[in-house]
Amino acid sequence: MSETSLSALLPPLRLLVLGCGHVAQAFLPLLAPRGEWLGRELGVRPVITGMGSRSRGLYIHPEGINAETLTHQRDPSGWFSSTGTRVETVEAFIQAGKNAGASLFIELTTLNPLNGQPALSHIRKALEAGMDVITANKGPVAYAQVELQSLARRHNVQFRFESTVMDGFPLINLAEFTLAAVGIRSFQAILNSTSSLVLSMIEQGYSRDEAIHKAQQIGVAEVDPWYDLDGWDAALKTTILANTLLDGQLTPHMVEREGIRNLTADEICAAALAGSPLRLVSQAYCKHGLVIAEVRPRRISSDNILHIGKGTTGVISLETEAMGIMTLVEHEPGIAQTAYGILNDLITIQRQRSTM
Amino acid sequence: MSETSLSALLPPLRLLVLGCGHVAQAFLPLLAPRGEWLGRELGVRPVITGMGSRSRGLYIHPEGINAETLTHQRDPSGWFSSTGTRVETVEAFIQAGKNAGASLFIELTTLNPLNGQPALSHIRKALEAGMDVITANKGPVAYAQVELQSLARRHNVQFRFESTVMDGFPLINLAEFTLAAVGIRSFQAILNSTSSLVLSMIEQGYSRDEAIHKAQQIGVAEVDPWYDLDGWDAALKTTILANTLLDGQLTPHMVEREGIRNLTADEICAAALAGSPLRLVSQAYCKHGLVIAEVRPRRISSDNILHIGKGTTGVISLETEAMGIMTLVEHEPGIAQTAYGILNDLITIQRQRSTM
Repeated sequence: MSETSLSALLPPLRLLVLGCGHVAQAFLPLLAPRGEWLGRELGVRPVITGMGSRSRGLYIHPEGINAETLTHQRDPSGWFSSTGTRVETVEAFIQAGKNAGASLFIELTTLNPLNGQPALSHIRKALEAGMDVITANKGPVAYAQVELQSLARRHNVQFRFESTVMDGFPLINLAEFTLAAVGIRSFQAILNSTSSLVLSMIEQGYSRDEAIHKAQQIGVAEVDPWYDLDGWDAALKTTILANTLLDGQLTPHMVEREGIRNLTADEICAAALAGSPLRLVSQAYCKHGLVIAEVRPRRISSDNILHIGKGTTGVISLETEAMGIMTLVEHEPGIAQTAYGILNDLITIQRQRSTM
Repeated sequence: MSETSLSALLPPLRLLVLGCGHVAQAFLPLLAPRGEWLGRELGVRPVITGMGSRSRGLYIHPEGINAETLTHQRDPSGWFSSTGTRVETVEAFIQAGKNAGASLFIELTTLNPLNGQPALSHIRKALEAGMDVITANKGPVAYAQVELQSLARRHNVQFRFESTVMDGFPLINLAEFTLAAVGIRSFQAILNSTSSLVLSMIEQGYSRDEAIHKAQQIGVAEVDPWYDLDGWDAALKTTILANTLLDGQLTPHMVEREGIRNLTADEICAAALAGSPLRLVSQAYCKHGLVIAEVRPRRISSDNILHIGKGTTGVISLETEAMGIMTLVEHEPGIAQTAYGILNDLITIQRQRSTM
């Protein structure tokens, strides 16, 4: 019997996927090529039982969508075939998915940086329905991590969000699985790649508008670049890291935030020429039992480990009680890393579940 | 009831500790201050049921050695009180420890770089006796990792060795718990701090002998510095990493090894002046299904991520299929990190055991 037919005998792990943008389009094609590996390692066979988005509609496929289709047909419009049953609301999607046996809800909708909605409500409903949840959406985590983790515990399920910070670099799992008792005291990091790229292009002589335009052309900056350049993206990530690594209870509005909007090209170039370029730096630390976090432009001297962060490279340096300073560098990350972070969360959930 | 008296009610986790050198002296004092945390997180109370070394003798303490004593009395000669029962051989030590309820054997004896003995035999015996084993000793792992892991599985126990590479930086756990399915293709690393330190001092104008002498004075180089400078230490670490990260089946003699002995001061200084200093670099990769590993001096250009490795800093850069390049930096590590790596292995073992 071939490996493929053997894995067909494994019990299904039924997934609901909400959101059909870049992240979903990078994640879903990862499943089929790893089907054999996942079967061997986890003893299950992932099956897409439901998929949808606001613009394309919400569909339940009790028989499962063929994962091969998702791998070979890159245009997601082909994924919404006539075989599924359409439902009208996300509540109905979760309920119908649950009835069809889905146990894992993957939330990949668009970010709302102001309050994390409506993704936050969707995640609450999925957890309350007894489903494990993975999200790559920073909003719900930054605004309600503690609440959602506690809700997950009450329902004996897991809530994971590795991809929300550093594009899937396993920082959150690293802290959970390998840094217990290490005592993280503070961190400093460069977390927003758009800001780094725009600053380094201004250093090379481009005007701010030219730099933003070029960053948009290569797909790093969004159509509205100010969410990144005003430090919102970094503030959301900093919130998540401060709450995860330092046991904080922050929301994004509690992070002191200053973006790179008010920096002049002259300042930016002079700092770089002097060997200590300006970058948008996230920092968090404990003071009198409170977690303090901030995002602001800082000059990075050449003996600072963050100096390594060239181009869109992300870097975080942890100051720990037991291990001294530990630094992690993610080189030129992209959507593929984010997608892998989701897969990694799926693997972690399944491994933990098999021991619960 | 106070936390302390509450933790006294927890079931004991009885440890045997073999070896009483620097690593044991750094590790044992970590336990008492973390007793409350370990009790809360792991539901057990670590108890030292046996301790010994070749020079000091082997003692079983069925009632346990008071961990507070180990914290406050830094001179280990005070640890060998008259209360224990002396045994003559390591076999008897393991057997008597087992009879007294010990379930975890911590092997911290001196390295034998040629074949890993006698630590390798001790670890085999402890695994065969049904005990989990932690070692900080590179020898047995580099020479017999696959055999020992398979022996551990057969006896339904664990064999862990985080501290053997990068002084406890959680690289091995990172790979096991957070990089499943990431597909590590190759790595390059600077793993031997003595070589880095000696090279950087030669760059500063010291002769080779002066540099070695200074490195010995500050406690980085051993009395015999050539184990480090001829690349043996790096070769053992490279073996362990190649076998762990790339599923290799290497022994240290299969690693192509060239140390820094034959480099002249002129070469070393000229390379540094040209901006690409010489460092002892470990590399491993797959070729035609075989894992190839080597340790040799290489010039590190300023755009190479290893260039960050100043002083005794350790650095490893992983090339992965799913996540691109990931780099981890351990700044100026010391014995405290090694000791923490052992504690981390203890935590991992206990967490896994509670789910087995």
